[in-house]
Amino acid sequence: MKVVKFGGSSLATGAQVQKVLNIIQADNDRRIVVVSAPGKRFTDDIKVTDLLKTYADQTIAGDDTTDILLTILARYQDIAQYFGLEKNKIIPQIKQQLIQLNRVHYPSFDHLYAAFMGHGELLNAQLIACILQTIGQPATFVSPMDLGMTVSGSPRAARLDPASYERMHHVQYDANKLLIVPGFIAYTNDGYAATFSRGGSDITGAILARGLHADLYENFTDVSAIYTVNPGIVANPKSIEKMTYREMRELSYAGFAVFHDEAIIPVIEANIPINVKNTNDPEAPGTMIVPNQAITPTLPVTGIANDDRFAALYLHRYLLNREVGFTLKILQILASYNVSYEHMPSGIDDMTIIFDKSQLTPTIKAHISHDLYQTIAPDDLEWLDDYAIIMIVGEGMQKNIGTLNKITAALAKDNINLPMVNQGASQISTMLGVPVDQMDEAVKVIYEAVF
Amino acid sequence: MKVVKFGGSSLATGAQVQKVLNIIQADNDRRIVVVSAPGKRFTDDIKVTDLLKTYADQTIAGDDTTDILLTILARYQDIAQYFGLEKNKIIPQIKQQLIQLNRVHYPSFDHLYAAFMGHGELLNAQLIACILQTIGQPATFVSPMDLGMTVSGSPRAARLDPASYERMHHVQYDANKLLIVPGFIAYTNDGYAATFSRGGSDITGAILARGLHADLYENFTDVSAIYTVNPGIVANPKSIEKMTYREMRELSYAGFAVFHDEAIIPVIEANIPINVKNTNDPEAPGTMIVPNQAITPTLPVTGIANDDRFAALYLHRYLLNREVGFTLKILQILASYNVSYEHMPSGIDDMTIIFDKSQLTPTIKAHISHDLYQTIAPDDLEWLDDYAIIMIVGEGMQKNIGTLNKITAALAKDNINLPMVNQGASQISTMLGVPVDQMDEAVKVIYEAVF
Repeated sequence: MKVVKFGGSSLATGAQVQKVLNIIQADNDRRIVVVSAPGKRFTDDIKVTDLLKTYADQTIAGDDTTDILLTILARYQDIAQYFGLEKNKIIPQIKQQLIQLNRVHYPSFDHLYAAFMGHGELLNAQLIACILQTIGQPATFVSPMDLGMTVSGSPRAARLDPASYERMHHVQYDANKLLIVPGFIAYTNDGYAATFSRGGSDITGAILARGLHADLYENFTDVSAIYTVNPGIVANPKSIEKMTYREMRELSYAGFAVFHDEAIIPVIEANIPINVKNTNDPEAPGTMIVPNQAITPTLPVTGIANDDRFAALYLHRYLLNREVGFTLKILQILASYNVSYEHMPSGIDDMTIIFDKSQLTPTIKAHISHDLYQTIAPDDLEWLDDYAIIMIVGEGMQKNIGTLNKITAALAKDNINLPMVNQGASQISTMLGVPVDQMDEAVKVIYEAVF
Repeated sequence: MKVVKFGGSSLATGAQVQKVLNIIQADNDRRIVVVSAPGKRFTDDIKVTDLLKTYADQTIAGDDTTDILLTILARYQDIAQYFGLEKNKIIPQIKQQLIQLNRVHYPSFDHLYAAFMGHGELLNAQLIACILQTIGQPATFVSPMDLGMTVSGSPRAARLDPASYERMHHVQYDANKLLIVPGFIAYTNDGYAATFSRGGSDITGAILARGLHADLYENFTDVSAIYTVNPGIVANPKSIEKMTYREMRELSYAGFAVFHDEAIIPVIEANIPINVKNTNDPEAPGTMIVPNQAITPTLPVTGIANDDRFAALYLHRYLLNREVGFTLKILQILASYNVSYEHMPSGIDDMTIIFDKSQLTPTIKAHISHDLYQTIAPDDLEWLDDYAIIMIVGEGMQKNIGTLNKITAALAKDNINLPMVNQGASQISTMLGVPVDQMDEAVKVIYEAVF
C-alpha cells in the first residue's frame, strides 16, 4: 500500500487535477491520497491558503468578506467546471462551509486562523473525492480524525498526539475505496481545527504512511527528481536516483529545499522509503529516499549543497583550551542574546563559531563582542559577516579514500582557498567554508571533480 | 641583555657545568643565569630534585635521613671537585642548609615539600656562583626575592604576585656581576619557600626575562634545535630555524615537548624572543621562537606534530542541531564527571567529541553514555578508544593554496584514510584525526609531501 501526497501546484487547476487522477488510477497500490490546497496557477497567482488568510484577517477586522469569499470559491468552481461538475451539490457545500467559517466562535485568533487556513485542504479533499466518484472511481473523503489522528499544542503549530498511532493501527477503513485526506489540517481531542506549522501536507502524508503501515510514501511535486547540485549554479546537473534519509538531511541543511526536515520524521522512524516524483512527468523514476542502511553506494558523492546564509566569529587566546569551562561561558553569552550557533570548530587556542547570519544584528554582534571581551578576554576577535558553506554528501565517502583529495586538488587548481574544512564529525559528509563570492565557482569546480 | 636558563642535564656533572661556564663567558650580554638542580648523569640516574623528595618523605616518616642527605651532598661535591673546590667552604654551607631543612617547622606538608625540593636549584645556584668567583668571573648568587619576585597560592603550585613586575622594574643590581638565580623555587611575602608546579626553571627564566627587560631569553637544553617532526618517526628530520609563539603552542599541544606552555607566558606577553639552544653544541643556531607578527614565512609548513593520547565519542541523532541547547546539555554531563573535552567538531546532526583519553575509565564512559542516552537520546553513540591527532602547523599555511591538497594527495596515494580533518578553526594549522595504527605512517607520508 502506498500513501500518495500531492502538492499545491499539482492541484492548482482542473488540468493539473486530471494528471493527479491519472496517477492515482495508474497504480492500484495508491490507496491513501493526501491533498494540498490549490496552489499557484502562474507566477503572480495567490495560493488558496493565502486567500484564506486574507479572509481570516478581514473577518477579525470586521470587514466585508463577500469578495474574498467569492474569490476562494471561484478556485474550486474552476476545478469543478473542468470536470463538468459546476452544477454538482459539492459547490454549494463548499460555499456553505466557507460562509460558516466566520460564524463560529473561536477560543483565540490562533484557533480562527487554523480553522480558516486549514479549509484550503479540507475543501479540496472533498472536491477531489467528489470528482473521483463522478468518474466512477470508488473514493471517499476522510477527515484525519476519522483515521485516528489527533493533535495538541498550539493551534497553528500542532503536534501529533502520541496515542494516534495506536488508534490508527486499529482503524477500520473500506479498502475498496480510495481515501482522500486533507493535508495540513488536523483536529484536537476537543474537536478544534489545528494546522501543522511548516511542511503541513508533507507531515500529514508521513503520519498516515507510518500509522497505516504503507510500504512507500510517494510525494508528488513539480520536479522530476532531486538534482545532485543546485541547477542555478551548474546547468543540467545529474539527478539523484537514490539517497538515504541522512544524506537528504545533510543536503537540505545547506540549501536543498526537498522537504521540511521535521515533516518526514514519521516515515524515517518507521523506515518507510519516500519517492519524490513529478506530477507532470509521472513516468520518470524520481528520487528514492531510503533508510540509512538500505543502500550500497556506487558513487562516493551523492550531492553537493551550498548556502550563503552564514556568518562566523573567530576567537583566539593563548592557552584558551586550558581554561576549564570556557565553551560553557561562550554558550551562556550566546544564550543570553537568544543566539544559537551552527558549528564550533576549534583549534588549540582558537575557536570559530558559525552562525545563521539572520540572527545577527550589528547591535547583537556588539553585545556579544563586549561580553566575550569581559569574560574570556580573547587576544583576537574577528567577525566574518558573510560565510558560505558547501556540503559534499555521500554515504560512500568514508569508504572512498581520496575523495577529499579530488576536491581540494580541483579547488587548488582553480586558486580557490579553503578557510574551513570540517570532515569527520559527520560520517557521510565534508563541510567546506568558502568566501561568499567564491561559492558558485567552488560548487562548479567540485561538481566537475566528483561527477 | 639576555636571560639564560640551563636545564638539569646541562648541570648534571662538573664537565657539563664547564660547558655552561664557557657559554656564559662567550657572550657579555648573558647577565642573568637561571639554573636548574643537577639532573641525570646517565639513563637510570636519579635527579637531585627526586633525591630531595625522598629526603622529604623520610623526614615526614621520621626515618633516618643520614644516607639520603649524604647522597644529595655527594652530587654537589662531585661538581665542586671537578673545579678543585672540594675543600671550599661552599661544601659545608650546602651540607648545613640540607641539615637545616629537616629542623624547621613547616605550616603544612606542602610547604615542607616545596622547601626541600626547591633546594636543588637553590644550592646549585650558590655552588655555580662560587665556581665562577673562583675562576675570576665576577658573579653573585641572587635569590628571586632579592630581584623583587614573590609568589602566592599553593606552596607547590606557586603563582607570581602581579606586583612583582613593578618591583623588578625598579630593582637595583650590580651590572658588573653575573647574577646566578635558582629556578623553580620562589618565596611568598611571608618568606615561605614555594615552587612552580611544572616547567619550573623555565618559568623563573621567563619571569626574569620579562621583569628585567631582557632582549632575548636563551633556553639551553640538550638538543641542537627543535625538529620539524618527531625524530622517532622520521630519521634525521629538518630543524626548525624560526617559529612563532603560536606555532610552538600548536606543535607542543600534539606531542612536541618544547616547553610547558604556561612556562613561557611571561615572555610572550612581553614579546621577548626565545632561543632554544644546546649546551653540548652551543655554536648551533638552535631554534628561535618569536612573536606572531615577527615572521614572514618562507615555507607553508613549519612543523608536524603527532600524539595518540586521544579518544573520541561519536553522536548522531536526526534533527540534533534543531534542539536548542543540546551542546550545553552535553557539556553539563561532561562537567558532572569532571571530564573536559579537547575538540567538538559537528556535522549537521552529528558531533564528535575528542578527549584526552587519560580522563576516561570504563566506568566514566559508561556513566557518560548512560546520561547522554537519558538526556539527548542519540540514534548512534560510539566510542573510539584510540585516536591519534596530527597537527600540521605553519604561519604560511593560510596564504598557501593547495597545502591541504598536497597532504591529502599523499595520504590517498598511500591508502591512508582520514576520518577527521579540521582546518580553519585555527588560522595556522590543520588538524587530522587518524587511526592510531596508521599514525606513524601518516606522519612519514606528510613529512615527505611538505618538506
